[in-house]
Amino acid sequence: MPKVVDPEERRASVAAAVWRVVRRSGLDGVSVRTVAAEAGLSAGSLRHYFATQAELLAFAMQLVADRVRARVDAIGPGPDPVTTVRRVIDELLPLDPERRAEAEVWLAFTTRAQVDPALRALRDASYDALEGLCADLVDALAPEHPHRAAEIERLYSLIDGLVLHAVMRPDRATPELMGAVVDRHLAELGQ
Amino acid sequence: MPKVVDPEERRASVAAAVWRVVRRSGLDGVSVRTVAAEAGLSAGSLRHYFATQAELLAFAMQLVADRVRARVDAIGPGPDPVTTVRRVIDELLPLDPERRAEAEVWLAFTTRAQVDPALRALRDASYDALEGLCADLVDALAPEHPHRAAEIERLYSLIDGLVLHAVMRPDRATPELMGAVVDRHLAELGQ
Repeated sequence: MPKVVDPEERRASVAAAVWRVVRRSGLDGVSVRTVAAEAGLSAGSLRHYFATQAELLAFAMQLVADRVRARVDAIGPGPDPVTTVRRVIDELLPLDPERRAEAEVWLAFTTRAQVDPALRALRDASYDALEGLCADLVDALAPEHPHRAAEIERLYSLIDGLVLHAVMRPDRATPELMGAVVDRHLAELGQ
Repeated sequence: MPKVVDPEERRASVAAAVWRVVRRSGLDGVSVRTVAAEAGLSAGSLRHYFATQAELLAFAMQLVADRVRARVDAIGPGPDPVTTVRRVIDELLPLDPERRAEAEVWLAFTTRAQVDPALRALRDASYDALEGLCADLVDALAPEHPHRAAEIERLYSLIDGLVLHAVMRPDRATPELMGAVVDRHLAELGQ
């Protein structure tokens, strides 16, 4: 009797393999062949789930978005608004190896989406979701802020800049420095 | 008599061709063959200046850094520190098509540098230069700030986040919104 494989589990393990290939070789390194080898599958078996490189990439990018969303949704209210907002932002920043991997993969996808229409809709949906989240955070700390639109973009840009820096220069943009930057920002915003 | 070609001029026109290919097809599209075609040269003629894709990419990335640096160096002192700092930051942000092209190319190189050691030294040198520039800006507006390190990283992350957003979503991160964000930030920093 053939082994029964949970399709969801199989897809998740394939996505993890895509991430490892992206982090090691960039998106150029992703193909049905290289990912199959990384996941310990035959190329034919992998094609059963993902027929093309584009499908592999879109799935792996969606997984980043889903994971971040699940972590943010799991955050309960903190003792005060600043603490709650800080906890949400911590889930977006690459403060540990797992979140650093997500950030590296996200940056690679984001760049590829510039020239790959198949990834752009997914990239834009993530952008909108994060912008909406930043709007919620600004409203939580500074209800009816007179410069609301600018403050939302300021917070969102700050977070994405920190993510970019932590990926590029983990030696400079350390978790401690990122935390200090976010604390300064939230203290001013909540004044 | 063969036409005399200024080598510097030739290299600059090749770099411009690299930029156009990067913006249209991503870094994957850059090769001696595609860039030669874009620049209207034979591949043999191009190889006289750049033997490999890596040399082409490094030269085009260096050109972005040189152009930004030249524009920043040309800024004279404004009527007050906030105006001067704002003028410097304006040269870093993709507020017009030329600076948007630079930003797109810079983002593509930055991402490639994650997996290409040949580009990493150049990327890290640019990072250090911009971090130093942000330190100068913070010192100009808020001398001996008690949270100097965090404020430098906060300003630098904010700028890079705005650049990233303007490249990804020019419809959302408009020049007007970017300007409003920077104004808010500098007003608070200079308080």
